[in-house]
Amino acid sequence: MNSVVSLADKLALIDGHWAPHIVSRVNGQDVKLVKVLGEFVWHDHPDTDELFLVVSGTLHIDLPETRHTLTEGELFVVPRTVRHRPVADQECHVLLIELAGTLNTGERTDSRLTNPATWL
Amino acid sequence: MNSVVSLADKLALIDGHWAPHIVSRVNGQDVKLVKVLGEFVWHDHPDTDELFLVVSGTLHIDLPETRHTLTEGELFVVPRTVRHRPVADQECHVLLIELAGTLNTGERTDSRLTNPATWL
Repeated sequence: MNSVVSLADKLALIDGHWAPHIVSRVNGQDVKLVKVLGEFVWHDHPDTDELFLVVSGTLHIDLPETRHTLTEGELFVVPRTVRHRPVADQECHVLLIELAGTLNTGERTDSRLTNPATWL
Repeated sequence: MNSVVSLADKLALIDGHWAPHIVSRVNGQDVKLVKVLGEFVWHDHPDTDELFLVVSGTLHIDLPETRHTLTEGELFVVPRTVRHRPVADQECHVLLIELAGTLNTGERTDSRLTNPATWL
């Protein structure tokens, strides 16, 4: 963990979409990278806030009553317990910060998109 | 807190160097932006790891026995209790993640560079 991490170098190693990879950890929070495309599933995380920082592309974060749209260099925090759905019309690269051990699909542990994060 | 944050827009509001500003919070961690130039003071944080992500420019992080150099899109975590000194030869913009309430100069509470972070 105690080395310099290049986001671009790590992203180059990631294949596929919606599979988060851990690249660093700070105070029990995982720093993850993920490539996204299309619509994710609606879900929530009861125990963790979730920070989304767009590294490249455009990301929509649908909340129950609104849609937030983030472009490169913009971030948004979904508070714990708030239902949300990330959506990307074109491939988008995202940095996530959330409690270590968080499952990407939250309470939906058996979605086809459920993908436990692994260290990259 | 629950809005989209543009790093560029927030950085444009910051004057001076070594004055961290809080722009978001996730799970009790502050997300801060800071402009740095020159040599900071050697210090440590007994209770918090500290993540540095370079938004623009080049940042050296001196540790007791080594120097790590980060450019745009690179991050490094200084573990709690490890003495360190950030150095930038030219102005550099940095995103920090650390426990809310962390003082920038750590145990050195009376340095001329001591600057409690405020929300931006």
